[in-house]
Amino acid sequence: MCYNIFIVESVCVGWFSLEFILRFIQAPSKFTFLRRPLNLIDIVAILPYYITLAVDNTSSGQKKPGSGNIYLDKVGLVLRILRALRILYVMRLARHSLGLQTLGLTARRCTREFGLLLLFLCVAIALFAPLLYLIENEMADSQEFTSIPACYWWAVITMTTVGYGDMVPRSIPGQVVALSSILSGILLMAFPVTSIFHTFSQSYVELKQEQERMICRRAQLLNKAQLGNMTHGSDIISESLSSEAKY
Amino acid sequence: MCYNIFIVESVCVGWFSLEFILRFIQAPSKFTFLRRPLNLIDIVAILPYYITLAVDNTSSGQKKPGSGNIYLDKVGLVLRILRALRILYVMRLARHSLGLQTLGLTARRCTREFGLLLLFLCVAIALFAPLLYLIENEMADSQEFTSIPACYWWAVITMTTVGYGDMVPRSIPGQVVALSSILSGILLMAFPVTSIFHTFSQSYVELKQEQERMICRRAQLLNKAQLGNMTHGSDIISESLSSEAKY
Amino acid sequence: MCYNIFIVESVCVGWFSLEFILRFIQAPSKFTFLRRPLNLIDIVAILPYYITLAVDNTSSGQKKPGSGNIYLDKVGLVLRILRALRILYVMRLARHSLGLQTLGLTARRCTREFGLLLLFLCVAIALFAPLLYLIENEMADSQEFTSIPACYWWAVITMTTVGYGDMVPRSIPGQVVALSSILSGILLMAFPVTSIFHTFSQSYVELKQEQERMICRRAQLLNKAQLGNMTHGSDIISESLSSEAKY
Amino acid sequence: MCYNIFIVESVCVGWFSLEFILRFIQAPSKFTFLRRPLNLIDIVAILPYYITLAVDNTSSGQKKPGSGNIYLDKVGLVLRILRALRILYVMRLARHSLGLQTLGLTARRCTREFGLLLLFLCVAIALFAPLLYLIENEMADSQEFTSIPACYWWAVITMTTVGYGDMVPRSIPGQVVALSSILSGILLMAFPVTSIFHTFSQSYVELKQEQERMICRRAQLLNKAQLGNMTHGSDIISESLSSEAKY
Repeated sequence: MCYNIFIVESVCVGWFSLEFILRFIQAPSKFTFLRRPLNLIDIVAILPYYITLAVDNTSSGQKKPGSGNIYLDKVGLVLRILRALRILYVMRLARHSLGLQTLGLTARRCTREFGLLLLFLCVAIALFAPLLYLIENEMADSQEFTSIPACYWWAVITMTTVGYGDMVPRSIPGQVVALSSILSGILLMAFPVTSIFHTFSQSYVELKQEQERMICRRAQLLNKAQLGNMTHGSDIISESLSSEAKY
Repeated sequence: MCYNIFIVESVCVGWFSLEFILRFIQAPSKFTFLRRPLNLIDIVAILPYYITLAVDNTSSGQKKPGSGNIYLDKVGLVLRILRALRILYVMRLARHSLGLQTLGLTARRCTREFGLLLLFLCVAIALFAPLLYLIENEMADSQEFTSIPACYWWAVITMTTVGYGDMVPRSIPGQVVALSSILSGILLMAFPVTSIFHTFSQSYVELKQEQERMICRRAQLLNKAQLGNMTHGSDIISESLSSEAKY
Repeated sequence: MCYNIFIVESVCVGWFSLEFILRFIQAPSKFTFLRRPLNLIDIVAILPYYITLAVDNTSSGQKKPGSGNIYLDKVGLVLRILRALRILYVMRLARHSLGLQTLGLTARRCTREFGLLLLFLCVAIALFAPLLYLIENEMADSQEFTSIPACYWWAVITMTTVGYGDMVPRSIPGQVVALSSILSGILLMAFPVTSIFHTFSQSYVELKQEQERMICRRAQLLNKAQLGNMTHGSDIISESLSSEAKY
Repeated sequence: MCYNIFIVESVCVGWFSLEFILRFIQAPSKFTFLRRPLNLIDIVAILPYYITLAVDNTSSGQKKPGSGNIYLDKVGLVLRILRALRILYVMRLARHSLGLQTLGLTARRCTREFGLLLLFLCVAIALFAPLLYLIENEMADSQEFTSIPACYWWAVITMTTVGYGDMVPRSIPGQVVALSSILSGILLMAFPVTSIFHTFSQSYVELKQEQERMICRRAQLLNKAQLGNMTHGSDIISESLSSEAKY
């Protein structure tokens, strides 16, 4: 890891940690604060830095020579996966982008449709993959369709019309099965998508209206604060800000 | 076949068989019961286990040594295909999932559109595949487009925009044909899909309402049964359950 | 050409020719009859058989030995292309299938949208293909992107999300160009598709209503013919049939 | 560069330059004229010809022998990129095609949705690419996923369902990540597309109405000009034309 990137990351994580702690202290109910998905993402994004630092410090002496140590190898793998999770910093944008908020709201509202989509896909894969495995191995003596899990992968790639081309059925019955799996894939994938679309555009309009109402109310609160008692003003504004941060 | 998987399967099939026989005895009209698609799927899913068991028992002695016996080889192939059909257990989920029921209802209502989709696809394949076969063999001396059935496979993969890449036209006239077949494929596939979508979302709403009405009615029946003559209650409930099982 | 297939084809073409000649004699205006697209397709589908027959007869003696004759080789190529056109028999189905009639009507109504779709595609290909050709040859010393026409082929395959994988950009600037061409391809292809969908479903409903009205009217005409003067009946029915054949 | 193509290009560029200069002189406000996107495209499309001509003339003597000169090599690269920009002539069609004008208007109105689409795509790529890079290198010792930028390219090709097949995950955890990235790609790409569609069809109807009104008004102006003072007529028409050229 380059030294310059390390400094940039330290500054970023420092800022995020400070902001997170201030928001945690500010929150009226600590438990509700920790249960919000965006705050959980913050924790998962910040923690890996500290864990990496801690492990690096404790094992700085014996890590390089102990290459035969299986336990340390596994720790290294976990560390690398945790480091990859730093990319969740990106999701912090959701706090400020209406589009990403809409995405989150749609995901929460459409769990039923997402489940349906996955269920349809699983049923279709479970039907077509073993059938193709059997046919290809009986008819064409294939070297590609070596196992049923490999056929699951083929079915996923074919049904979503990605078509990498790493596994291609060669026998004519296999190609008929492929045709029917492609057609059912196109139809099955498309069913829940339409209702998810509908929910997305509805959520977008709702969040836009809510945002506009929020801006109006904040302007009114600011006016009230200037007119009334100046000492209470900051409390009202912080309350308004925290109610805004819910979305 | 591993011994543990065999035991798990035996228990499952035993349970399914018991349930199926009880429902068959319960049914007022045996013929109507056997004509329902979900019950047919049950039979097709359960039977292979018993057939495999029977064949394995009768041919357990002479199967291994009689490897030169062509008749037994064919029986083996049929058995393996039947075993693959065990995956139809998955479709039993349809009895309990609203999404899968909607899928079944859409499939029954949209037979006309599915036929249209297949007709369009067949016409387009029958037009483009021989044309490309002729052009590629005249112009580019291709080693991939060896026969017209192989070109049908190419046309299917190209029109559904899967694009495995195992067969690619090399000559410029062949690529022009490929372009027009891709465009017509995208348009043709999409035509009936929209009306199938419409039917699906309509069926989903209908089934949801029906399910809610069913739950209401069952609650009323239970109340009535508790209030009225207790001996008739179970008959009414079983009737309500059997009318529910239609979907 | 196998002898059995030749006999089947002769019978089919004989029947089609007979039907076509009867319809031609029956038609009040010969010119209007010949201008209808379905009749033109009939001619194009039937003629190749007779031309092949004529050429085979005149050149049956000297065809095989005159393999060095360039003129006859070209005639052979034209004949093979004409033979491939026999597949237009399939389009004769359009006379009897509501779906294929709707397709034809949509194609005639949406010429503007089809033109738009092609224009968009051409503009996008003309923008991205030379750009990628230049970048790939400057940056990555590619062996795949050898000429601008080859890049046109790449752009078509990429924009329609088919993705055969026979030509893949290797340099990072080339991949950025590929990303923007994929995104613009998805958006551009999808623009006119929605309005074509709308026209298709509208045409389908219209044709269905027209067909139902036609069946009603024919029933009325048959009743009238039975009640009134029997000698005029057949004329009215044939008129009703010819007005039905317009679609 | 072939001599004949050079002559055709010279004539075209001469005509375009003449037309552009006349319109520039005609324009009431030179600054507003230069800020219109279609005029900017004209400049970018015409200029490369003159720059190429100027550079070719000044360096005609020493270009071929000075192959070792790094400065001239870079000039040559810039020239070739500029020459590729000549393809922007195609965009001049936008002045006369309603479809391309609608495309331009949609692009200006949907900047928010295009931004959303790119943001969603970037977030998803930033999440899935490093995850797959880590998994593939830990599990399968892959030779394809050599760096994180290469994984970005894989994520783009997979999420847009293009699927070239040049990079395919081999390990089972990698394939699970691939499945989730395909599903999220299909859903994410499709979200803003629907609202862009809506804007496109709305813009198309608006522009059509505007065009019809414009034709009506021009006809009225011509009538008025013929009835009233003949000397003012040409000014009014040119004004009407310039107001039409805005779109």
